[in-house]
Amino acid sequence: MSGAITCSAADLATLLGPNATAAADYICGQLGTVNNKFTDAAFAIDNTYLLFSAYLVFAMQLGFAMLCAGSVRAKNTMNIMLTNVLDAAAGGLFYYLFGYAFAFGGSSEGFIGRHNFALRDFPTPTADYSFFLYQWAFAIAAAGITSGSIAERTQFVAYLIYSSFLTGFVYPVVSHWFWSPDGWASPFRSADDRLFSTGAIDFAGSGVVHMVGGIAGLWGALIEGPRRGRFEKGGRAIALRGHSASLVVLGTFLLWFGWYGFNPGSFTKILVPYNSGSNYGQWSGIGRTAVNTTLSGCTAALTTLFGKRLLSGHWNVTDVCNGLLGGFAAITAGCSVVEPWAAIVCGFMASVVLIGCNKLAELVQYDDPLEAAQLHGGCGAWGLIFVGLFAKEKYLNEVYGATPGRPYGLFMGGGGKLLGAQLVQILVIVGWVSATMGTLFFILKRLNLLRISEQHEMQGMDMTRHGGFAYIYHDNDDESHRVDPGSPFPRSATPPRV
Amino acid sequence: MSGAITCSAADLATLLGPNATAAADYICGQLGTVNNKFTDAAFAIDNTYLLFSAYLVFAMQLGFAMLCAGSVRAKNTMNIMLTNVLDAAAGGLFYYLFGYAFAFGGSSEGFIGRHNFALRDFPTPTADYSFFLYQWAFAIAAAGITSGSIAERTQFVAYLIYSSFLTGFVYPVVSHWFWSPDGWASPFRSADDRLFSTGAIDFAGSGVVHMVGGIAGLWGALIEGPRRGRFEKGGRAIALRGHSASLVVLGTFLLWFGWYGFNPGSFTKILVPYNSGSNYGQWSGIGRTAVNTTLSGCTAALTTLFGKRLLSGHWNVTDVCNGLLGGFAAITAGCSVVEPWAAIVCGFMASVVLIGCNKLAELVQYDDPLEAAQLHGGCGAWGLIFVGLFAKEKYLNEVYGATPGRPYGLFMGGGGKLLGAQLVQILVIVGWVSATMGTLFFILKRLNLLRISEQHEMQGMDMTRHGGFAYIYHDNDDESHRVDPGSPFPRSATPPRV
Amino acid sequence: MSGAITCSAADLATLLGPNATAAADYICGQLGTVNNKFTDAAFAIDNTYLLFSAYLVFAMQLGFAMLCAGSVRAKNTMNIMLTNVLDAAAGGLFYYLFGYAFAFGGSSEGFIGRHNFALRDFPTPTADYSFFLYQWAFAIAAAGITSGSIAERTQFVAYLIYSSFLTGFVYPVVSHWFWSPDGWASPFRSADDRLFSTGAIDFAGSGVVHMVGGIAGLWGALIEGPRRGRFEKGGRAIALRGHSASLVVLGTFLLWFGWYGFNPGSFTKILVPYNSGSNYGQWSGIGRTAVNTTLSGCTAALTTLFGKRLLSGHWNVTDVCNGLLGGFAAITAGCSVVEPWAAIVCGFMASVVLIGCNKLAELVQYDDPLEAAQLHGGCGAWGLIFVGLFAKEKYLNEVYGATPGRPYGLFMGGGGKLLGAQLVQILVIVGWVSATMGTLFFILKRLNLLRISEQHEMQGMDMTRHGGFAYIYHDNDDESHRVDPGSPFPRSATPPRV
Repeated sequence: MSGAITCSAADLATLLGPNATAAADYICGQLGTVNNKFTDAAFAIDNTYLLFSAYLVFAMQLGFAMLCAGSVRAKNTMNIMLTNVLDAAAGGLFYYLFGYAFAFGGSSEGFIGRHNFALRDFPTPTADYSFFLYQWAFAIAAAGITSGSIAERTQFVAYLIYSSFLTGFVYPVVSHWFWSPDGWASPFRSADDRLFSTGAIDFAGSGVVHMVGGIAGLWGALIEGPRRGRFEKGGRAIALRGHSASLVVLGTFLLWFGWYGFNPGSFTKILVPYNSGSNYGQWSGIGRTAVNTTLSGCTAALTTLFGKRLLSGHWNVTDVCNGLLGGFAAITAGCSVVEPWAAIVCGFMASVVLIGCNKLAELVQYDDPLEAAQLHGGCGAWGLIFVGLFAKEKYLNEVYGATPGRPYGLFMGGGGKLLGAQLVQILVIVGWVSATMGTLFFILKRLNLLRISEQHEMQGMDMTRHGGFAYIYHDNDDESHRVDPGSPFPRSATPPRV
Repeated sequence: MSGAITCSAADLATLLGPNATAAADYICGQLGTVNNKFTDAAFAIDNTYLLFSAYLVFAMQLGFAMLCAGSVRAKNTMNIMLTNVLDAAAGGLFYYLFGYAFAFGGSSEGFIGRHNFALRDFPTPTADYSFFLYQWAFAIAAAGITSGSIAERTQFVAYLIYSSFLTGFVYPVVSHWFWSPDGWASPFRSADDRLFSTGAIDFAGSGVVHMVGGIAGLWGALIEGPRRGRFEKGGRAIALRGHSASLVVLGTFLLWFGWYGFNPGSFTKILVPYNSGSNYGQWSGIGRTAVNTTLSGCTAALTTLFGKRLLSGHWNVTDVCNGLLGGFAAITAGCSVVEPWAAIVCGFMASVVLIGCNKLAELVQYDDPLEAAQLHGGCGAWGLIFVGLFAKEKYLNEVYGATPGRPYGLFMGGGGKLLGAQLVQILVIVGWVSATMGTLFFILKRLNLLRISEQHEMQGMDMTRHGGFAYIYHDNDDESHRVDPGSPFPRSATPPRV
Repeated sequence: MSGAITCSAADLATLLGPNATAAADYICGQLGTVNNKFTDAAFAIDNTYLLFSAYLVFAMQLGFAMLCAGSVRAKNTMNIMLTNVLDAAAGGLFYYLFGYAFAFGGSSEGFIGRHNFALRDFPTPTADYSFFLYQWAFAIAAAGITSGSIAERTQFVAYLIYSSFLTGFVYPVVSHWFWSPDGWASPFRSADDRLFSTGAIDFAGSGVVHMVGGIAGLWGALIEGPRRGRFEKGGRAIALRGHSASLVVLGTFLLWFGWYGFNPGSFTKILVPYNSGSNYGQWSGIGRTAVNTTLSGCTAALTTLFGKRLLSGHWNVTDVCNGLLGGFAAITAGCSVVEPWAAIVCGFMASVVLIGCNKLAELVQYDDPLEAAQLHGGCGAWGLIFVGLFAKEKYLNEVYGATPGRPYGLFMGGGGKLLGAQLVQILVIVGWVSATMGTLFFILKRLNLLRISEQHEMQGMDMTRHGGFAYIYHDNDDESHRVDPGSPFPRSATPPRV
């Protein structure tokens, strides 16, 4: 709380004249109480802000679950929703036991954190339970992205393994590099000790969350191969459309709603005056971040609407939803350090990147039911580059601490150092996730734990592994679904006429 | 921040006696810091309150999308959800470029605002980014109402045109009149310069949002005519029921959840003491507004439940949902300036108005799939009249500034001036929206850009314009939906057996 | 607001020396203003925190509606969603008229409150409109639980009667006993006048909300008997599965989202320093409560995943959802007074209790479509016992006021008194709800107002009482649904091929 009241009884006593020490003590004592009450109020305000931001980020997990469910075929609805519930549930325990410690365990070295396992010695002077909850909600988002890429054909056991590894280790280590004050590429290191004098600027995780989730998904989908029926012999793509556009739109809007906790919430504090007593403070930066997030998503949605109309001949709501989310994934890195007009540029290009990546994916017969690698990996990488081009010096200094001569956006006259740091972040994330998650998926494949059998893929995992079809619109459908307690399979394996 | 600390060193010095100037400076310097810190804390508290209220109002867009989707037939689900996504997306850009400027562009004249285009010279001393985001979320709600009236038969191009015109111009001008301090009918003008010494009282927009959206929808639906099959030759009404009651209930509850940002959030600040140091302040007015909103909706829902049971013979959840929303649309104008018992009266009458308007609509063969004109137009107008009858002087003075001899509710002894101002608002909105949106719909019809062909209407717009049916519950359904990249139409135009 | 500024002009004057009274008055006058401004800020912060917590708790009603809809067969979707809408709507009016007064009507005796009927003489010095809204959102949650137990076979009139009785009288009286400072078993009574020197510790209502709702549901379901087809002649259980797993997951996640208002929000204030000026205060307790809630739910979900995999042979998302909710219902009593590791224990045992109760239910042929009695009644009771075992002295003193020698968790060295008080609470709730709701259900049955006819049960209540089937995926389905205005029944009573 900058601008603390520093009433010095000694100083005041001399000013008040002879034998005024007691008066000075009295006055300063009162002002000391005032100072403490400001400290209390600040903790209450900032914790209210961070807790409700965390709840919004958690709502994104519901958004993911609905988006994923709507984007897969009806016969795999239970399967993918179960992965979303367990991302949150298993992520809760793993992040509590060691994920948070690896990411933010205080006073550690550049690679990995080593304190606060299972929240021992917590809260600390710089982090309270609200910060842990906020970071847990972020961690489970990364795992949610990956399950989208390998949906409809992955064994449940493989899911349990890769999700725990991603949420408990791979993701926390990356967040330590870029978000912990000790991280080797962090912008929060002391000014003279930062990568290219700036550190990588990834405010809310275009790289740390979206690229990590997207690249992990890329490897999983590449190693598993496409869903059966996705590409014809000659290579022509067949759209295996999701079973419910309503769930896709519901999920997209919930992600949009949660993104207002994801980006503006990443300030973690709102009561930070830039010039005490003036109307311009961190609250303005937070509002601007919410506006930038909105403008980038809106622009990407409109660009995708008209772009895909040209390419496919119709106005497609699920394409527009993906365009919208691509715009959000891209602006997430620079949302707090750019002007609103630049956020529009960011959204426009994010849509171009997404359409391009999807075209490329069809060319190389890469199948990703949620376009997760293209959207989160492609638009996430563009979002990091965008910061290197458009970040504004004034906002960087407000958000990351005033640093004379700090590098900023290339197109804004800030030189190329920041862009360099952003490119390093992209390469390092691709490398780390490929080495860790790529290897894991490869091992799972070799142990025959990765892909389900062809028969199960055709029947759908809900019938064969999750207790029955997700939808039963008629009592007699239920007959075919009657699961005799103890037997793994429903009486009839054919999905009901719904 | 009323009750500022005004420590005057000069005054204190004289009191402290000879050569005490330095001491007085010192003490007042400390208290100056205290004052600044209170200013900072107030900005942080009020911006937290307004931002999270804005996020709730945005959640109403999700509510609209689900309500609309559930209320139309399955074959038009993608179409209407796309309009809801684009209300938000296109609205984002238009409101940023000129909508906000027309509505709240500071120091302008009575008709239209003329500053802050594309948020230039922003934030201002009186408005920060959080205020822009809040007003954007309001603007897109008006467009969402209109698309409900003309659902299931409107060309997508016509939708793009009218939605941009409504969100970018028609709605912002109305909000300038009644909500900008410069607006000609605004209650925020100086006391001696207000319409009928009061200005129109429309706290959260029964008129500005709901009537504008409802009257625009009325014109669109009248000019387009009813859906095919809605009325038999003899004029008997055939209920073309929506395809999913679950989506209707989901949407209604989300709108209810978002309304707690829409009405209480319209105070825009919570830290406004009415009598510093006492437990009664704007926070109490905000809580009362949330309770009034709840009671009006609850009463309207129960009245509709029993009213429609008498009329139609069964307990219908979709009717109860519309009744609930009618109660909210009505109380929105007076939610902050009436007692809880009056909110119950408001809700009861809103239900009567809605049932009456629906009866009238059937008589004149007016078809509105969402009952939008009846609900938002009819109950919105009743809500304005309700204020003129039940507004309490004490609350008007707290919310709109103490004004001796201010007119208030007719039934509360406050004379007829306020009711007069409310009736002027109703007439002006009907006139302005008819002149602008009515004309636009008429032109679109003449240019054959308004209604879709009969064949498209029977097949449904999802199949013919949006890439396929919204629901696919079986793989082989997908065959009929396979859309060859590049061709506008799926292989088979008949909707699958779902 | 502890640590108030108590500047005494008399004291200061003597210190400032001769004829310094005016100076002292001046300085203390300033500090008096400072103190008032802190009071204002605290009201704004705490009301923001409580209002947004209330909105989250309200969102649970949406979660209940979706969970209930997804868990019943398609033919009863409209029926159960209507009960959820009316829980909120009827609950709004009853709680305003007398529910709040019975529960929290200030300065009353141990059994029932007797003030603030229809919010007369409101707000009070200790309760503002935000507190009323928060408590209303709690009250409607209890009624929502009960309607789950007796779904798919209860007359709508019976629902209207028992829901009003529960929300208007039974629940408020229980909340008076345990949550009102006057309640006979309340931990807020003066230290020397508490049940077993502690009062029952039920922070957010494992007993007051979940057991009350669950035990009421138990009696309803027992007196009505199982749904037709639920148990074969020989007693073997037949799973009558819900019609939509997507709605179940949507509802579960929304309940999880709302639980962040239900548990942390129960502090009702966030600006309560435990040691003014330090980073540890009520905001930390609130954050820890959110983390404990998360960990208990996550652990219960994972335990149920693996437990049911062993028992039923497959990974079932709807079972995991119920396990998750059981973990939440259990931790709700002790969420603020235990350590995170203990919350994990709570969740694990909650899953074991739920699986056990479900097994028992099948043995005694008890049918509960939502497992409401098992989940809310069983896990709620375990949650109360858990507090008696694991509550930590330090946290009890922070949350309920420092009391030397206060009893605390048996396993934490705090003796058996607290466990005793918890067991009294369990017995008293079972007794009170059995006497009130049990008797009411029995009377309704005798008056033939409780269960619907066999014919209506087979056809489903949507067709026979609520205007038609909830889902219509094809225009011609609508033909069979065409409801001629005025006639109670649709043309064809057979549900469409959806």
